[in-house]
Amino acid sequence: MSDFLIAPSILSADFARLGTEVDNVLEAGADVVHFDVMDNHYVPNLTIGPGVCAALRKYGITAPIDVHLMVQPVDDLIRMFIDAGASYITFHPEASGHIDRSLQLIRDGGCKAGLVFNPATGLHYMDHVMDKLDMILLMSVNPGFGGQSFIPGTLDKLREARKRINASGKDIRLEIDGGVKVENIREIAAAGADMFVAGSAIFNTEDYARTIQSMREELARATT
Amino acid sequence: MSDFLIAPSILSADFARLGTEVDNVLEAGADVVHFDVMDNHYVPNLTIGPGVCAALRKYGITAPIDVHLMVQPVDDLIRMFIDAGASYITFHPEASGHIDRSLQLIRDGGCKAGLVFNPATGLHYMDHVMDKLDMILLMSVNPGFGGQSFIPGTLDKLREARKRINASGKDIRLEIDGGVKVENIREIAAAGADMFVAGSAIFNTEDYARTIQSMREELARATT
Amino acid sequence: MSDFLIAPSILSADFARLGTEVDNVLEAGADVVHFDVMDNHYVPNLTIGPGVCAALRKYGITAPIDVHLMVQPVDDLIRMFIDAGASYITFHPEASGHIDRSLQLIRDGGCKAGLVFNPATGLHYMDHVMDKLDMILLMSVNPGFGGQSFIPGTLDKLREARKRINASGKDIRLEIDGGVKVENIREIAAAGADMFVAGSAIFNTEDYARTIQSMREELARATT
Amino acid sequence: MSDFLIAPSILSADFARLGTEVDNVLEAGADVVHFDVMDNHYVPNLTIGPGVCAALRKYGITAPIDVHLMVQPVDDLIRMFIDAGASYITFHPEASGHIDRSLQLIRDGGCKAGLVFNPATGLHYMDHVMDKLDMILLMSVNPGFGGQSFIPGTLDKLREARKRINASGKDIRLEIDGGVKVENIREIAAAGADMFVAGSAIFNTEDYARTIQSMREELARATT
Amino acid sequence: MSDFLIAPSILSADFARLGTEVDNVLEAGADVVHFDVMDNHYVPNLTIGPGVCAALRKYGITAPIDVHLMVQPVDDLIRMFIDAGASYITFHPEASGHIDRSLQLIRDGGCKAGLVFNPATGLHYMDHVMDKLDMILLMSVNPGFGGQSFIPGTLDKLREARKRINASGKDIRLEIDGGVKVENIREIAAAGADMFVAGSAIFNTEDYARTIQSMREELARATT
Amino acid sequence: MSDFLIAPSILSADFARLGTEVDNVLEAGADVVHFDVMDNHYVPNLTIGPGVCAALRKYGITAPIDVHLMVQPVDDLIRMFIDAGASYITFHPEASGHIDRSLQLIRDGGCKAGLVFNPATGLHYMDHVMDKLDMILLMSVNPGFGGQSFIPGTLDKLREARKRINASGKDIRLEIDGGVKVENIREIAAAGADMFVAGSAIFNTEDYARTIQSMREELARATT
Repeated sequence: MSDFLIAPSILSADFARLGTEVDNVLEAGADVVHFDVMDNHYVPNLTIGPGVCAALRKYGITAPIDVHLMVQPVDDLIRMFIDAGASYITFHPEASGHIDRSLQLIRDGGCKAGLVFNPATGLHYMDHVMDKLDMILLMSVNPGFGGQSFIPGTLDKLREARKRINASGKDIRLEIDGGVKVENIREIAAAGADMFVAGSAIFNTEDYARTIQSMREELARATT
Repeated sequence: MSDFLIAPSILSADFARLGTEVDNVLEAGADVVHFDVMDNHYVPNLTIGPGVCAALRKYGITAPIDVHLMVQPVDDLIRMFIDAGASYITFHPEASGHIDRSLQLIRDGGCKAGLVFNPATGLHYMDHVMDKLDMILLMSVNPGFGGQSFIPGTLDKLREARKRINASGKDIRLEIDGGVKVENIREIAAAGADMFVAGSAIFNTEDYARTIQSMREELARATT
Repeated sequence: MSDFLIAPSILSADFARLGTEVDNVLEAGADVVHFDVMDNHYVPNLTIGPGVCAALRKYGITAPIDVHLMVQPVDDLIRMFIDAGASYITFHPEASGHIDRSLQLIRDGGCKAGLVFNPATGLHYMDHVMDKLDMILLMSVNPGFGGQSFIPGTLDKLREARKRINASGKDIRLEIDGGVKVENIREIAAAGADMFVAGSAIFNTEDYARTIQSMREELARATT
Repeated sequence: MSDFLIAPSILSADFARLGTEVDNVLEAGADVVHFDVMDNHYVPNLTIGPGVCAALRKYGITAPIDVHLMVQPVDDLIRMFIDAGASYITFHPEASGHIDRSLQLIRDGGCKAGLVFNPATGLHYMDHVMDKLDMILLMSVNPGFGGQSFIPGTLDKLREARKRINASGKDIRLEIDGGVKVENIREIAAAGADMFVAGSAIFNTEDYARTIQSMREELARATT
Repeated sequence: MSDFLIAPSILSADFARLGTEVDNVLEAGADVVHFDVMDNHYVPNLTIGPGVCAALRKYGITAPIDVHLMVQPVDDLIRMFIDAGASYITFHPEASGHIDRSLQLIRDGGCKAGLVFNPATGLHYMDHVMDKLDMILLMSVNPGFGGQSFIPGTLDKLREARKRINASGKDIRLEIDGGVKVENIREIAAAGADMFVAGSAIFNTEDYARTIQSMREELARATT
Repeated sequence: MSDFLIAPSILSADFARLGTEVDNVLEAGADVVHFDVMDNHYVPNLTIGPGVCAALRKYGITAPIDVHLMVQPVDDLIRMFIDAGASYITFHPEASGHIDRSLQLIRDGGCKAGLVFNPATGLHYMDHVMDKLDMILLMSVNPGFGGQSFIPGTLDKLREARKRINASGKDIRLEIDGGVKVENIREIAAAGADMFVAGSAIFNTEDYARTIQSMREELARATT
């Protein structure tokens, strides 16, 4: 696994052939399977739940599965996704009345824990839980809707988040989700992100491997 | 399509190969694809949403898709499943503040509309909407949980529902969901059901065609 | 006040000139001011609250004001409308966890109390509170939306409600709301209604008095 | 234990000396400890939870504890009260989305299960779960408030409930709660009740034994 | 329109003569019509909805209408008020799960967008959406209740908000609502406000023009 | 009353002998009775409500009663606990839509008002209400669950809270709740706390007086 992780969102994959799709994108060089869970309450759509995650594990997927919960409340689904084989589980701080407890619940289940920040959500939510975070996910679009572009102000927010992570001395991934593509991934990495969700930017291209390779080339330039 | 419809629930299928699974079960003689939607609010689980339904249509499935909404509220998901290619859409009367309007919404979208009755839910909910119903679905287990057996009292409830349907003179399907298998399908049909959801009873067998064929043979005896 | 009460819904009046509108429609022969309250939770719209009711009283309106609460929960607004000068207060049984108590609350405030039945709602909700009801309101359209036609099945429901009222020997008004107009008011009265809400059917006509007069003529024929 | 059960509600006891109070009332001849749980959501008050029930068991109370849940939702508190030593657990059908499942949950925990009917709630909720009921509790006041009198219409409702229980041939207790006292208990028993909750009617008297004795004398006359 | 905007709240106007009231207050020199929407969920009252706003437009009001949503959730009412002719739409950040998206929704509808801050609400909510704000509204009383006095601590909060606006270089109005009157408007303006809601301070006076004129004179001194 | 207040939580007391338990712990040297209210909505448990508080007052307890509301919403229970004889009332800022108003409500009832901060909750909630606070309560475990250890990061949070209180010049208690015991109370006091909730650390010991005495000795060393 490289320093920069590329995490295709299977929300843009073909759900009728999900095993094959995930196989293909991993063979094409992806590091992590990004798994978007919506419950039609926290966001106005309903996608896929723990049964689909478990099916991928049973199918033979061994790569990390990164579960982004766009649900409210969160604790019961955390438990279900632990059982379903999730690797990372992240949730929105506004969706849990007891953030510290929900993070601990994820870690007690053997998964890596993270918080997701909506475009307008302040980073202060991480202040008192830095030692329980394995990941911070910044949304660069509003979750629950398709076809949005990367919100430019997220670059500043990434820089602020990166500064906080570095100051903490903790090993915390800084993931970005929304409107990421070959054309802007270098700039996003330069602002501090080290894990990149991409949906249609990968799955809507003909050659997943070439797209991911182009992303890696851009990322390589960002680090130099 | 025969007089008795067999509707395998894809909740028991392999989500990593959903297109193939659905193809296989239809080739094996199934009539309808049963699609269970849970939102972790109306029932304590989250399954699959409109995106998965749309993927099946895009994959080429042309058989009727029978969407059972175990969600609350219902109207927004009704709209989404109409767009996703559903054929039938059913919901629980307790989950809609405006049952007549929700039924009309389904029909306005070109789908067939139905109400689902939990084991304890009274049939009186159909009294004032008989002319807006294409289907009545009786739950013979409590929705949202696996591994339950057919609740025996449902047979009486089926007879009562059948009586009401016949008295109305309307063309309304009477579907049953929960614990249906080869061993009891004849008795269930004799009580008045004419559409049968079966999940693990089909997908957990080696030979879908033989299982469905056994069901049909049992059903044939029920009618004589 | 005649035996049949005509209750124009001010939802269709001009809110910029509400006092004048109400004056005009009462001078034109209306008996009761119908006042539709929506909270954007029980129905998907928000209309007018107790402040507007109080303003009509302060303006000098002395006719009965018939407040139809399309809200959830109901008890706090019941208290506010009692203070605001309501005469009748009706609510939907599904919107109150404690129907008997809410009815009692209305009566304790010196108002007449009633239940409203959505098109699909069963009349069984009145079974155990007949002695606390001054009014039953049947919706002949789904509340919260405009431009709907009278649902024909409501005629049967009216007859059933009328039978129950007569059997109880109580003095209970049977009101109807939704799609009532000169063309169908006679048939509706024949089915048992004795109080008629009409919105656009009155306020969208040039001459309120003539419209109300036509309704009365139709009603006179219904009784003979 | 006699045929008629007297169940003092500890809501009227002195919470500072609860063990002694319960000891005293049982020594005075009470059969069952009635335990009222309110959560400030289903009713507008908050009383006592599973910890208080467990304390009574630890204190040495071995009489049946009859837990009336005035809460919403119900399933988690059902589990907690099973662990806390409850004997009966009853809940309001409107407070559970899955009534059959909640009743089964109570029985699976080794407790007796029941439904509670608010004054306006129809008895139809018992229709499809008669074989899962050990008790039916009719409220003769609105729950969550003190100082109310027995609602007279409950007598008819008791007769109807008694008829349904007898017709079922099942062994189901018919409990009544609200405004029961020496003066009316005979009439209530005559209407069909066989289990009687009394709060202030017992705990606000000087001599619990004499009060309970008076109730039993009245009950004896009801049966002859 | 002057540099300082005076925005009479029609909540204090006479709802029976709303068109005339608004005409009068605008002729008296007001700049903006302030429109308070309460839904009995976010605050414990229900006032007026989009139908009243549309009626004012139809009546001929062309001045800006400044809609303050004291509702939860916000998105559906935002859409309705856009259609009803609103000019500004503001909402409380705690009432929207997706603040960035709701602000964008307002602007996409051609209206100016703003956030409202309750007395205890931190200004951090504006941090990541400064480029989507046309207005910031500070509450100097708790919304939803009448008869409150200006909370003195709001002056410091105004100064902090003004500093942030100036630092951003953006063209953002700083509105104040609650207890504003001739006696304190100069001090409030000096603290940074440039838009002033006043309800009873205007509508409860005999001569609207003289009151507004007195406010303007006070404001003129604030700027020198 | 000493400078440091020790507040045993009666959640760990014997509910069957609550009066005696509270008597004993006060005689053993405790300063304040800590009263934990849970509603099974804000936290997943239900404990004791205003009736139990009132019983303690009636029993003769005159020591301050410190009510910690783990409930949502808060305003109605605030009113009930004022009537029940509470001395302090604290609530979680996330549980009130109108924090300033809820604090004022407590003070208007003659009680001392405070905010409670969950482990992950930021201290910014106190920024604009410093002049309405008599107490700040930091949770050093997640509320609603037993058997947790003191979260170490709370020491830094205590220091930050102490700094803010001192900077304000206000007389505000800084209370700590969760995992406090003889072994760590000195360190916690050194970090700034001056009021200490202890449940099992006191009630699970044989000799309450000796435990409290040991705590006081530790506290005495903290101040030197």
